[in-house]
Amino acid sequence: MSKITATYLVHDKKENLQKKAEGIALGLTVGSWTDLPQLEQEQLKKHKGNVEEVIELPEDPRADQFLGSHRTRGLLKISYPSANFSNDLPAILTTVFGKLSLDGEIKLVDLEFDRDLEQHFPGPKFGITGIRDIIGVHNRPLVMSIFKGVLGKDLSFFKQQLYEQALGGVDLVKDDEILFENPLTPFEERVKIAKEVLKSVHEQTGEKTLYAVNLTGRTSELRDKARRAAELGANALLFNVLSYGPDVLQELAEDKEIPLPIMAHPALSGAIGSSSLYGIGYSVLLGKLLRYAGADLVLFPSPYGSVALDRNETLSIAESLTTDRISLNKSFPVPSAGIHPGLTPVLFNDFGLDSVINAGGGIHGHPDGAAGGARAFRQAIDAVVKGKDFESFAEKHTELQKALELWGGVPVK
Amino acid sequence: MSKITATYLVHDKKENLQKKAEGIALGLTVGSWTDLPQLEQEQLKKHKGNVEEVIELPEDPRADQFLGSHRTRGLLKISYPSANFSNDLPAILTTVFGKLSLDGEIKLVDLEFDRDLEQHFPGPKFGITGIRDIIGVHNRPLVMSIFKGVLGKDLSFFKQQLYEQALGGVDLVKDDEILFENPLTPFEERVKIAKEVLKSVHEQTGEKTLYAVNLTGRTSELRDKARRAAELGANALLFNVLSYGPDVLQELAEDKEIPLPIMAHPALSGAIGSSSLYGIGYSVLLGKLLRYAGADLVLFPSPYGSVALDRNETLSIAESLTTDRISLNKSFPVPSAGIHPGLTPVLFNDFGLDSVINAGGGIHGHPDGAAGGARAFRQAIDAVVKGKDFESFAEKHTELQKALELWGGVPVK
Ligand SMILES: [Mg+2]
Ligand SMILES: [Mg+2]
Repeated sequence: MSKITATYLVHDKKENLQKKAEGIALGLTVGSWTDLPQLEQEQLKKHKGNVEEVIELPEDPRADQFLGSHRTRGLLKISYPSANFSNDLPAILTTVFGKLSLDGEIKLVDLEFDRDLEQHFPGPKFGITGIRDIIGVHNRPLVMSIFKGVLGKDLSFFKQQLYEQALGGVDLVKDDEILFENPLTPFEERVKIAKEVLKSVHEQTGEKTLYAVNLTGRTSELRDKARRAAELGANALLFNVLSYGPDVLQELAEDKEIPLPIMAHPALSGAIGSSSLYGIGYSVLLGKLLRYAGADLVLFPSPYGSVALDRNETLSIAESLTTDRISLNKSFPVPSAGIHPGLTPVLFNDFGLDSVINAGGGIHGHPDGAAGGARAFRQAIDAVVKGKDFESFAEKHTELQKALELWGGVPVK
Repeated sequence: MSKITATYLVHDKKENLQKKAEGIALGLTVGSWTDLPQLEQEQLKKHKGNVEEVIELPEDPRADQFLGSHRTRGLLKISYPSANFSNDLPAILTTVFGKLSLDGEIKLVDLEFDRDLEQHFPGPKFGITGIRDIIGVHNRPLVMSIFKGVLGKDLSFFKQQLYEQALGGVDLVKDDEILFENPLTPFEERVKIAKEVLKSVHEQTGEKTLYAVNLTGRTSELRDKARRAAELGANALLFNVLSYGPDVLQELAEDKEIPLPIMAHPALSGAIGSSSLYGIGYSVLLGKLLRYAGADLVLFPSPYGSVALDRNETLSIAESLTTDRISLNKSFPVPSAGIHPGLTPVLFNDFGLDSVINAGGGIHGHPDGAAGGARAFRQAIDAVVKGKDFESFAEKHTELQKALELWGGVPVK
């Protein structure tokens, strides 16, 4: 019998976690159980939620003090039969954490789809392998950069910035997530110009660059807009998935007429993932859910910038995006925010070969401009992949050297 | 110049809230300002975010201790020009709280649309007045009830439950939000049976009852499914808006071929609204956003049940749904969860005439069954609206009396 299994972290006012778990397993499915007549139990058995495991955790006096009363901490693992919901993410989320999200100090920290359920989800259309094939790079982390300050600027500014970033050797360039439909740099014009610029860079360098155009607007218009982008020669999409909903991403990923990798932006995710007491853990929110829904790349704050996530959280996101235990294509983890070339060794150490290193200021703020910044990253990646001594390698590579002088290096501990 | 104004509650590591606010106002719009040449400042002026107000709040030693360092608490009010975003909720949310949601201890606690921006949103198609007109009740709070234990049961069970609830005098009956497409009680069959049952009740009692059928499934199929429901005689929709996205609700509300009131369920809202440090305040999340998007009724946990919200939070949701400062139709506040007839006086005191009192167990658990529970609520409402002494009124009304004996009464403080 197919099922989904949710794990919750609770800080509960009462002592008995087993009872709490049973209350959830019944409350979110058949309502009651032991009082039911035998016949009704037979009838409802295949709909009943089940407590799979209850793990009591050590007390957290800091949380108790914050919440103003003693709490019993624990992990409750509860499974829900697939018979209870349709095979879509809104139904699954409502089942496992709809009403329950309002029930005191409870956080959804894991969600396991079984194989039967898994096959109802598309996963990434391209995934890590597909994107590597498009770009033609298989043996190193990719480099990505972000447009800077396009708001209020025109297409010539956009064109120049894209040209410099791509020329320096970044593999992917993304729109700023706050760039929406606007008269100065309209969506279709950005796509057309990018196609031309990236073609010209390809002719000069032999390298392929993806430009992720920000897919925005009303929900029901996204598909046609994405299809149109593909027709005009777009080669990737950026999508603020959490401002729409995971099923909207899934419908884009499933659409055969949108043959483009989709990059999911973590905008709004902090509103759901930040608290240690409530919400949904990042490994679910930006990890599993987005992989199931079909994100080819997923951005998240690295542990090292000014906007930073806890290192273990970032590792758990990357693990969810790439684990072999899920039978779908893998999504590229893209640690972001405040990244400069000196962070390449720690990022490589944390996220490995199959990751994308994404920089904004660390590209544009380079003394030799965006092209220099991109070159510095490529040199840094070259060094770590070849296992070279980073500092000595930098001495022979001007752009990397300049980046380290400006931003410093961060050794792997 | 049209704009949107966001208010954030911050617990900031640094001392200078003014500087923090300016960093946000620039960081989420033009990036930098004072370093820009005069010409560029001219060019970007209409895109620049502005700090409207910074209010320092008293320290919170409890939060400091929980977070492990001293924090400066305050409210930052920042406006963003509408020129920066398209007039849709995903763009607005990404602009005001996209990346920012990930930036430490920050909570979006208010969002003010100016009149120019407001007119791009539909608001509720029916609203409080429209729903009152449909039901034909203008002088009292409405009563709503929820199906209980339909999962795993068949259409005859569904039919019987609906009949009893409606016969007792509830004004609205809603599906359980965890009832999805299923072979035992398919969507279209529920709609058809409800139409027949409610017609028969109307003939017996002269009262009109709305049945909110749960609109579920894949995002792009919702419109057609809702239109089909309308054709089959549905008279209301239930929608788990936060598992889809607010723009999906808005598209349903805007659709002229879906002439049905939409009831928004708060499923998943706890994941975003529960924390005092992060996320989005309930008055925005379940209040303003849902009114702008077009919810005719909005459910939220009352302050009085087992799953409860803070009383001030619930009052602020209701205020957002009904304030005259927003020029759109008003949405019905529906305090829910753990409601029994004895709570009617406090609910009336809190939410007034223009609210819906919603009960599950407090209807079905009545000694005289669901019909008795419904009658008890109607009697309780009769008492409070007429300003009668609640206890003496109950002595003359059997069902109310039985409810008070079972669940107790809760006097207004
Ligand atoms: Mg950005
Ligand atoms: Mg329910």
